[in-house]
Amino acid sequence: MSTAGKPIQCTAAVAYAAKQPLTIETITVGAPRAHEVRIKILNTAICHTDAYTLSGADPEGAFPVVLGHEGAGIVESVGPDVTNVKVGDHVIPLYTAECGKCKFCLSGKTNLCGSVRDTQGRGVMPDGTSRFTNSKGEPLLHFMGCSTFSEYTVVADVSVVAIDPTAPFESVCLLGCGVTTGYGAATKTANVQKGDTVAVFGAGTVGLSVAQGAQRREASRIIIVDINDNKEKVSREFGATDFVNPTKLPAGQTIVQKLIEMTDGGLDYTFDCTGNVNVMRDALEACHKGWGTSVIIGVAAAGKEISTRPFQLVTGRVWKGSAFGGVKGRSEMGGLIKDYQNKKLKVDEFITARRPFAEINDGFEDLHNGTCLRTVLKF
Amino acid sequence: MSTAGKPIQCTAAVAYAAKQPLTIETITVGAPRAHEVRIKILNTAICHTDAYTLSGADPEGAFPVVLGHEGAGIVESVGPDVTNVKVGDHVIPLYTAECGKCKFCLSGKTNLCGSVRDTQGRGVMPDGTSRFTNSKGEPLLHFMGCSTFSEYTVVADVSVVAIDPTAPFESVCLLGCGVTTGYGAATKTANVQKGDTVAVFGAGTVGLSVAQGAQRREASRIIIVDINDNKEKVSREFGATDFVNPTKLPAGQTIVQKLIEMTDGGLDYTFDCTGNVNVMRDALEACHKGWGTSVIIGVAAAGKEISTRPFQLVTGRVWKGSAFGGVKGRSEMGGLIKDYQNKKLKVDEFITARRPFAEINDGFEDLHNGTCLRTVLKF
Repeated sequence: MSTAGKPIQCTAAVAYAAKQPLTIETITVGAPRAHEVRIKILNTAICHTDAYTLSGADPEGAFPVVLGHEGAGIVESVGPDVTNVKVGDHVIPLYTAECGKCKFCLSGKTNLCGSVRDTQGRGVMPDGTSRFTNSKGEPLLHFMGCSTFSEYTVVADVSVVAIDPTAPFESVCLLGCGVTTGYGAATKTANVQKGDTVAVFGAGTVGLSVAQGAQRREASRIIIVDINDNKEKVSREFGATDFVNPTKLPAGQTIVQKLIEMTDGGLDYTFDCTGNVNVMRDALEACHKGWGTSVIIGVAAAGKEISTRPFQLVTGRVWKGSAFGGVKGRSEMGGLIKDYQNKKLKVDEFITARRPFAEINDGFEDLHNGTCLRTVLKF
Repeated sequence: MSTAGKPIQCTAAVAYAAKQPLTIETITVGAPRAHEVRIKILNTAICHTDAYTLSGADPEGAFPVVLGHEGAGIVESVGPDVTNVKVGDHVIPLYTAECGKCKFCLSGKTNLCGSVRDTQGRGVMPDGTSRFTNSKGEPLLHFMGCSTFSEYTVVADVSVVAIDPTAPFESVCLLGCGVTTGYGAATKTANVQKGDTVAVFGAGTVGLSVAQGAQRREASRIIIVDINDNKEKVSREFGATDFVNPTKLPAGQTIVQKLIEMTDGGLDYTFDCTGNVNVMRDALEACHKGWGTSVIIGVAAAGKEISTRPFQLVTGRVWKGSAFGGVKGRSEMGGLIKDYQNKKLKVDEFITARRPFAEINDGFEDLHNGTCLRTVLKF
């Protein structure tokens, strides 16, 4: 019997408070309203942004909330006026929406979309309400417009893209955030060209995806910087030509000096994938005078600021940032899936653990073990 | 009788120490050596960078020195191996050299040239020595590769460009720094396009030149921000569509809020022409989310740093800088002169005072009178 139009009871992991384990429980997921899509999530991964919000460090993080934003699933039902996906479509929820109609979408200059930004930021659907209710009848907040830590979720139609149904959910869920963010930062935001030199700070999923983007563009040098020596092997597997541990430099040598020395004046492009504002400064200052461009991808802790001497910019360095790799999810996800299927984009290689959804709290622990890239959960 | 190959005695203004008036005296200017050009300066203007160095605030400022870098004159003689200019050519000295051969010049990405950077920074000619000697036989330092506060000066051949001999020295000397810096920042570094919105912080020669660059590109909105209401009239003459005095906003409204309100979300391009790092931050944060670009032109005081939350960049704003407007002096000065001659580029309008060279110390005082744009000195 069809569930369309009716509430669905299902398993979800609810974050009731910062620094507390998620509570696995049965919640009620309301039917999609106009321009909304209800998705049965098959797989979801855990990203550092989920952990950041759960840590309480995010001043905008609110509870109780259903976290999760790297997922993939099947459309269970759609509300009125939904035309871009239909029941049975395999889909990826998008935390960066694409309406195609707002000032941002029409500008041709950015992948940021203004259509659902305000309500997404407040953890509700575009009509200002939630589709999630716990067993006590209390509403639960949505997260990043996705909330993939629930077997069923509801998203705005502008926040979902249908994909090739032959693509495996377990892998392509990673395109919902980390892989796309890094790969896009290299190939779209920075637009690395053949022969360019690149340094990447942080060898997590995002940083390694920057490296594979730079490799795809035939960068001449891809230097990965990470304080964990165990990351050297995987860095080289994802395209790094060099690996530098900044904690092991000769006394008196900074990482900026080391990188400038290695590249005869500095890098064409650098990427911060750490969220540490001191690293962001190093990344900028390791850029080549005259043209070097540094791209901030990592999310900094609340209240932290970046700084540098303005002379760094006056002499030609450029400081910019990237969100979701500059990728327009609805227009461009298909190409990324195809690249994955044609073995031009590594995705499976990021999966360092697979767990049933019930082990989601162990999955959060995995993030701290030093070799984890992505733990993928299965409903 | 030709002076070629011989030292020349002439009038110069020597800065012997910070915060002291310049000393007008007779100095000896040595003959140009290989790849050097001796120029008889006809006119020179006074720029804030001269005043900055004279103030002692520049930690790299060294004394005794012959300041001045906005000048124009005639080639008196050339040393061996000089091929780009000849005796009698009308020329402008360039503090941003262009050798055409170094990594920077060949990159196609920057106007910064590495050929004479180190020696220029140390106040000497490329061979490491000075061509200036005072009456006691003490060597005097060169400044910014130009030293136009001397009736005769010697510059590297890569630091000089021949110009149309019909162009008036008194006006085109201003193309040696301020006008070119602002105009180039708008038309080259930012590359403002038709319909773009622009805000310029600081209504001096550089800021007004940014405005005329933006007007030339048919920007839809050119907002000049200055704390001196007397600048409104001249701002509008140079293309401003709006003038805002940030000290006169309603209580509780910041200049960033005001600009975002005026432009429905922020500017496409902003320019700092003040050198104040707090203004630089405002300029960045007044940019439109998704694509707004802020260009730092002003020179900050020693030790000052710019700061912002990295979120400003992650959400699409770009922070960059500009030196000499991104203009390659030897390749592109001719075009600027032509624009001036064809009345497409205002230059004469910046001259707010004319003085004989002997009044150079009064010229420095002019800078502080609130209506001065440029005082031009005549030998």
